[in-house]
Amino acid sequence: MTGLLTVVGLGPGDPRYLTPAASEALASATDLVGYGPYVDRVPERPGQRRYASDNRVELDRACFALDLAAKGARVAVVSGGDPGVFAMAAAVFEAVDKGDPAWRSLDIRVEPGITAMLAAAARVGAPLGGDFCAMSLSDNLKPWEVVEARLRAALGADFVVALYNPISSARPWQLGAAFKIVAETREPDTPIILARAVMRQDERIRIVLLSEVEASMADMSTIVIIGASTTRLIERSGGETPYVYTPRFYGVRP
Amino acid sequence: MTGLLTVVGLGPGDPRYLTPAASEALASATDLVGYGPYVDRVPERPGQRRYASDNRVELDRACFALDLAAKGARVAVVSGGDPGVFAMAAAVFEAVDKGDPAWRSLDIRVEPGITAMLAAAARVGAPLGGDFCAMSLSDNLKPWEVVEARLRAALGADFVVALYNPISSARPWQLGAAFKIVAETREPDTPIILARAVMRQDERIRIVLLSEVEASMADMSTIVIIGASTTRLIERSGGETPYVYTPRFYGVRP
Repeated sequence: MTGLLTVVGLGPGDPRYLTPAASEALASATDLVGYGPYVDRVPERPGQRRYASDNRVELDRACFALDLAAKGARVAVVSGGDPGVFAMAAAVFEAVDKGDPAWRSLDIRVEPGITAMLAAAARVGAPLGGDFCAMSLSDNLKPWEVVEARLRAALGADFVVALYNPISSARPWQLGAAFKIVAETREPDTPIILARAVMRQDERIRIVLLSEVEASMADMSTIVIIGASTTRLIERSGGETPYVYTPRFYGVRP
Repeated sequence: MTGLLTVVGLGPGDPRYLTPAASEALASATDLVGYGPYVDRVPERPGQRRYASDNRVELDRACFALDLAAKGARVAVVSGGDPGVFAMAAAVFEAVDKGDPAWRSLDIRVEPGITAMLAAAARVGAPLGGDFCAMSLSDNLKPWEVVEARLRAALGADFVVALYNPISSARPWQLGAAFKIVAETREPDTPIILARAVMRQDERIRIVLLSEVEASMADMSTIVIIGASTTRLIERSGGETPYVYTPRFYGVRP
């Protein structure tokens, strides 16, 4: 087979954070496939076909894209952030694994991107400066018991924790439940970062303490970063937002 | 103070993976500060001062850069990968936190980059497709007991684990010890990715099974990704390298 499928990471949204390699993959594609708002971010190019779908059909979208590639197209599957982190790349490989055996001989590439936790961290300082975990709080694809066990394990070992997919209208209670679990092991003054639509027009970033945080401060465009016991705020003068960082050292003198 | 300090993520090395925002920060800097090989990656520009140092003096380098910025310079501190992930950003904020109080009023920014685990993952498929942890295996800045406890916690909760700084001449035994711990909880056929110098001229990527892995397969330029129990290989025909991915779902039917 001669087709090519590239899963392309668009990064947080601002084209200044799109890698040149990702731009090239988008420009050379004959066909773009993806969730509507992501497809809309890509400049139109004459002759390039565009297939926008809604957000809940990742596997169908992956199969559709693989089928186009199998017919000889150069397909770009567009994904927010990094495609390998709670985004389209895993769906594409799930489809290859379970689907038409001929898809295994396709050339399938992934173009990495700036994932939300890196963009959010960069905006506030260096909260991911120590060891950290990234987990999806969604229980659509795994039982809540697994989410809870992973969160407890990460907190118990004092990792910083980045929560993707923290809340949605269909999953209204999970983030509140997660904050309660966090409060069992972390101090009330633990910094929590709620970063919404990072590096987009409607960006909103809050740094609050665990004692103040509420699930209503997040929506489905938010990433939540929970500090470790060592994560610190650096207060600044003149009402400037504090910096947040996690030191590289732990349990030893710097 | 009018100075500016930007910690700039160079990504894995290939300029095709440097964001336009990072390129701009480098081009507009009056002074570049960083570990020699990273400074060498940045194109020379007339009038721009360059300060290259060795790899073991992050905090001194951060203080030097902050001092330049305090004198009014536009300083770029260059960092491999993403500066917020086991790189220079935390060192800069540690220096601000402990150092001259005047540094708190500086404008300090972070330009995110493609960190090694994202680049490595993109090269092989989607091994980070589920929940994952990123940890430094170095016991220079934390006791080995903390490293071991975090590794056991991550393995126990079935996270994929990305190991930064897996081995060096000064830390020869830690990776072997880590693989022994992995073998206590993961099956012998668990995929392990050893990705060296990803997206550079001397890139070398291996996918091996846990039963075959040896610490000697890694060096200080390698990132190691340990699959979860659900991480799968997709075998391909004609001697092509298999794809590796971790499904998004866990403990439920896809």
